[in-house]
Amino acid sequence: MYQQNTNSLASVFQQAEYKLGGHAPRNVDLLKQAFDGMDAETEADMYGQGKLIGDFERKMADYLGKSSAVFFPSGTMAQQIALRIWSDRQSSKRVAYHPLCHLEIHEQRGLHELHGIEPVLLADADRLIRLDDVTGMPEDVVCLLLELPQREIGGQLPAYEELEAISAHCRARGIKLHLDGARLFEVLPYYRKTAAEICALFDSVYVSFYKGIGGIAGAILAGESDFTEESVVWKRRHGGDLISLYPYIVTADYNFDLRVDKMAHYWAGAEKVARLFNACRQVVTVPEVPVTNMFHVHVALPPEQVEEALVTVAQASGVGLSSYVRPKGEGSYFELSLGDRLDLIPEEKLALAIKLLDEALG
Amino acid sequence: MYQQNTNSLASVFQQAEYKLGGHAPRNVDLLKQAFDGMDAETEADMYGQGKLIGDFERKMADYLGKSSAVFFPSGTMAQQIALRIWSDRQSSKRVAYHPLCHLEIHEQRGLHELHGIEPVLLADADRLIRLDDVTGMPEDVVCLLLELPQREIGGQLPAYEELEAISAHCRARGIKLHLDGARLFEVLPYYRKTAAEICALFDSVYVSFYKGIGGIAGAILAGESDFTEESVVWKRRHGGDLISLYPYIVTADYNFDLRVDKMAHYWAGAEKVARLFNACRQVVTVPEVPVTNMFHVHVALPPEQVEEALVTVAQASGVGLSSYVRPKGEGSYFELSLGDRLDLIPEEKLALAIKLLDEALG
Repeated sequence: MYQQNTNSLASVFQQAEYKLGGHAPRNVDLLKQAFDGMDAETEADMYGQGKLIGDFERKMADYLGKSSAVFFPSGTMAQQIALRIWSDRQSSKRVAYHPLCHLEIHEQRGLHELHGIEPVLLADADRLIRLDDVTGMPEDVVCLLLELPQREIGGQLPAYEELEAISAHCRARGIKLHLDGARLFEVLPYYRKTAAEICALFDSVYVSFYKGIGGIAGAILAGESDFTEESVVWKRRHGGDLISLYPYIVTADYNFDLRVDKMAHYWAGAEKVARLFNACRQVVTVPEVPVTNMFHVHVALPPEQVEEALVTVAQASGVGLSSYVRPKGEGSYFELSLGDRLDLIPEEKLALAIKLLDEALG
Repeated sequence: MYQQNTNSLASVFQQAEYKLGGHAPRNVDLLKQAFDGMDAETEADMYGQGKLIGDFERKMADYLGKSSAVFFPSGTMAQQIALRIWSDRQSSKRVAYHPLCHLEIHEQRGLHELHGIEPVLLADADRLIRLDDVTGMPEDVVCLLLELPQREIGGQLPAYEELEAISAHCRARGIKLHLDGARLFEVLPYYRKTAAEICALFDSVYVSFYKGIGGIAGAILAGESDFTEESVVWKRRHGGDLISLYPYIVTADYNFDLRVDKMAHYWAGAEKVARLFNACRQVVTVPEVPVTNMFHVHVALPPEQVEEALVTVAQASGVGLSSYVRPKGEGSYFELSLGDRLDLIPEEKLALAIKLLDEALG
């Protein structure tokens, strides 16, 4: 099996003057910034109670247009719980999602091991779930999870009309529709919709605060009150009802206010950067034209060669384009999510770096 | 059912100049203190990796005398996982613990709902598990959880020789012994043992950082490496493998260093305060002579009357003895865990307050 020589590329990236993706280095400054202006006597939340957590849950419920919202330490926990609740209510262990859904590939089969739920995988791994996948689901599927955007295929989105049609179909059949909105904030500019408008198509919604928002960790699960109340019981069972979650809540709230209105700007950045990459002879981006701040960079060369090229580029230009490369078929790829850092790179430096990449890839 | 008039007592307690239990108010100052001296460029932990989490896990493994340790967001998560691992290894869903075990009364039956484990309850609720309870367990029990001290009965401890005998019995029968050490640091002075000496009696150990240690939240699960490696997989499944746990790790480490050697001091404080309470005519403490920094205050009067007395005392003396009262049989009780705050109360003020309590209780 291919072994990544990450140490070398990762450390060159680390030392590069400019870095392409993300907002800032993952260090404790993120926490310090959010707490700096805060009154030290602000009362902690306690087992889900108190003003600090209550205010943020209310703010998010309103933003998402749902009756109620609950803060969770992680999306893994929030989403398993959502699917368990919908599954229990209809006494069926069958839910459906994309083959590259987070629950399928990043959670060590927690949904099965903890909840006994067996998913039906819809669509091929390299494309979005379509209406005909949904209308063709087995009869006993009681809940469908849709991820917007579909992260593992570069952050693709269905047309809004297709989303509406899928939602209408599920409503008509009594199939619960759950939104994996890990990157929901990021899709609003493309759809030209509010979060509440999109969430109205779904019965339950999860959003994350450490992707585009740039917090430390944490998630919100939102829906009708009877649903969220049940989720609080499951949060306790999962060991997620910590005595205090405020380190994540305060940083989520601070960075939400800082960045939620910058998603169109990040998207524009992604479009610009994708154009530069697509001008390289060995490179295509997926999607070719980004619909959010993210995309995947596919290179028709083996990872070793791409890594070497990225090292060369970083050393020559001072711009780290990626800290890693993963194998993909005969070639390789890496993911980019554009954020605050892009604005720090002088345009000509970035153009030069990607031109150097083209040359290095040959 | 009895409804606590907590608002009134809780708010009077809140405003009292002196407060008897704990270290400090639960506010964000705790976080600020731990991070104040910290370099903002300190790298975050990432999905369980990195120096920050690795160093603390190593430090705790060494302190507990185990091969390996894993940081968890909560004890609820860590302990369910420990029992699941031991249960899976011996293909039996039977584990044993005390009727007032945290898993039995505070976790919404998570152990059953998530792991399908059915506990055997040992001993009567109002006393410790004894050797004869253990030797009399059903044959199919594969794991025993012991809590030191047994919190829900005031923080009682078995004689060390009995603990050794229970451990020897379990070893001989191949029964895994798990330590609920939520308050392990607090028992070391009474046993005159190191944590490692006590933990050597157990196959797996959980410790908490927001009881006597006074952190924000978080737990360590320790044992042999094959056990902790499996626990990391389950941590991911439970949704506890957050991208970063450093807010809890940094505050745990900071407060561990600050307080781990003060447990004998807190215990001495508890002995002193318990003597004062036991001089009240309607009051007995459980245990009568504390063996850690904690005990329960039992009053032979209904909660309403005790609350009223505590309000009177706080208003007259400026000392808040408790923020709540709970019903217990015909009478009532509250829990005390002595910490840094005790040192702030002038001795004569505290003596006066408890004398006033005696008078108010009549």
